[in-house]
Amino acid sequence: MKVGNQDLRPIWFDAGADAVKVIDQRLLPHRLVISELRTVEDTVYAIREMMVRGAPLIGVTGAYGVVLAAREAGAGRKDAFYRLCEKIKAVRPTAVNLSWGVDRVYKATAGLSQTEDRIRTAKTEAGIIAEEEAENCRRIGMHGVTLVREAAAEKTGGPVNILTHCNAGWLACIEYGTATAPIYAAHDAGIDVHVWVDETRPLNQGARLTAWELGAYGIKHTVITDNAGGHLMQHGLVDMVLVGTDRTTGTGDVANKIGTYLKALAAKDNGVPFYVALPSTTFDWNLKDGLGEIPIEERDADEVRFVEGLEDGVHHRVLIPPKESPCANYAFDVTPARLVTRLITERGICGASREAIQKLFPEKFSG
Amino acid sequence: MKVGNQDLRPIWFDAGADAVKVIDQRLLPHRLVISELRTVEDTVYAIREMMVRGAPLIGVTGAYGVVLAAREAGAGRKDAFYRLCEKIKAVRPTAVNLSWGVDRVYKATAGLSQTEDRIRTAKTEAGIIAEEEAENCRRIGMHGVTLVREAAAEKTGGPVNILTHCNAGWLACIEYGTATAPIYAAHDAGIDVHVWVDETRPLNQGARLTAWELGAYGIKHTVITDNAGGHLMQHGLVDMVLVGTDRTTGTGDVANKIGTYLKALAAKDNGVPFYVALPSTTFDWNLKDGLGEIPIEERDADEVRFVEGLEDGVHHRVLIPPKESPCANYAFDVTPARLVTRLITERGICGASREAIQKLFPEKFSG
Repeated sequence: MKVGNQDLRPIWFDAGADAVKVIDQRLLPHRLVISELRTVEDTVYAIREMMVRGAPLIGVTGAYGVVLAAREAGAGRKDAFYRLCEKIKAVRPTAVNLSWGVDRVYKATAGLSQTEDRIRTAKTEAGIIAEEEAENCRRIGMHGVTLVREAAAEKTGGPVNILTHCNAGWLACIEYGTATAPIYAAHDAGIDVHVWVDETRPLNQGARLTAWELGAYGIKHTVITDNAGGHLMQHGLVDMVLVGTDRTTGTGDVANKIGTYLKALAAKDNGVPFYVALPSTTFDWNLKDGLGEIPIEERDADEVRFVEGLEDGVHHRVLIPPKESPCANYAFDVTPARLVTRLITERGICGASREAIQKLFPEKFSG
Repeated sequence: MKVGNQDLRPIWFDAGADAVKVIDQRLLPHRLVISELRTVEDTVYAIREMMVRGAPLIGVTGAYGVVLAAREAGAGRKDAFYRLCEKIKAVRPTAVNLSWGVDRVYKATAGLSQTEDRIRTAKTEAGIIAEEEAENCRRIGMHGVTLVREAAAEKTGGPVNILTHCNAGWLACIEYGTATAPIYAAHDAGIDVHVWVDETRPLNQGARLTAWELGAYGIKHTVITDNAGGHLMQHGLVDMVLVGTDRTTGTGDVANKIGTYLKALAAKDNGVPFYVALPSTTFDWNLKDGLGEIPIEERDADEVRFVEGLEDGVHHRVLIPPKESPCANYAFDVTPARLVTRLITERGICGASREAIQKLFPEKFSG
């Protein structure tokens, strides 16, 4: 996506540097820094510390990690190669894209024993995944924009007000984003949109990343606390909620950033449609019970305890509660399918039910 | 309440200094600073900038503000005295206690024209209000503890897990707090309790104030993001939600810190009881429609944009979103009565309905 004069993606393989390059998303919006990943350890660090984050991007990062794993494992040593790939898959548990991306690239190298062959094949396959994810998002935008257009048609005046949680933008994907793709498409089509951006504690991906993305694209937006969405919906100030997901079951239960469930409840209570945008790579087809089956990552409590930001141009990390007070940091929650109005996928829009999902993706349910 | 060796209240009239003294709650938990209010302007500043906050405490601060108004107005000048009192009442719109406290003390001085008479009478009346609020909270604790005891009896093991939002503790009142009064009473009675403390963005009164209060009293607690409560309830980790309120209608609609409504929805969805603790001074008896009738304060967007905390012992105020991104700061929301399991008042526990409230406070509905 365009940022100033640059055409940027959150990840790419830089042939000149012979390394994976990523935007270090921890430093946005105040600094735009590109970092290099040269080893599996670099890859693990980048995913764990959330230099990269968002389900599709984690999947692509895992995919490129296999290139680095192949280089590190060396020729022949299939076991070492396998173990390095497994190490990457284990870093974050909730997003299904990570293991999906790693597995797909690893399998593409099956039967190859020469390091160079593995690297070349892995690089090609990871690149294909990246392009597919970009295309998935483009198509999500194409389908999703119809929902925004319908909402605009129903309004007598003013912009379509869309509430989003966390960052399901191009920074979380490759291009367009998932939840943001219909927003960018609507803006490009001349539909008047305004986005309520949940700041999304603890790591403030909404305030830091989504606001930055939308601002760079010239889309009207307002940052709010995670507490505010219900009040806005009670007062008719939200026309739709539009979020991404880290893993969605074949029955339509949606794991996403912690707090998504609360917004879905408020949407239901106020008759506001609640849409979830996802590429099919984020489905975990065989799961039937999101609450029972999707592992919810618990991250370092210091992410709750400390907040990072800028004062007089200098980065600080400040303590909020008493230093003795325990904190807990659940990173995701599960929104039951009954609260989800529609899923927006690269193949089209469907209800959040096994039947509806199966109609769009019949080949995934044949087993 | 005891803090270390001190017996502290958040406000008192200091005869020696001839001034109102308050804890500057903006600096907690990292610094405990007592400030003096000597003028109406000081009082307005303290309320607006939230050196003092919380419905009952705002009411008492307004009450003591009348003492300062009497001093400033001078003898005879009834108009000036009245205007100064009105100025205090206008500072914050949502909590009904502020105008209630100011009006009650102002009326107590009716017919007095000498400055000294007014001051003496106002001081006495404000002191009575403070003592009544302390006693109200003590009685809320006495009634509310029965709900905690019942929850403990239903559990097979482990503490009673209570989720609270914002700070409805003694810092918001005079002693005991409203929502915290049953918690302190349960702890004193030897009931095993653990409190999930919502950090409560934007001003983090939960993380800063409630965690500090509970820690000082030795009560187990864990600070969480405002996003986390729904997930905890889905997994059976919350036995009850217990919050305060800034204004409650005679029909049981509850205005409280922004985000309360979202927790009430999650409680309903998961069969978790949702209790609201309040002194009768927080009722606005004649209101029937909380959503339509209670004014919701919109505060400075910079409270969302910046977060304050400590780094290496130094206080910082850091910017989170891009500096160009607009932010909005709605301070309260309204939880409809249908989501409220019970109200806990100084006279006892009742349902959130006109009929049930009227049974406890029949004299308020005679008109």
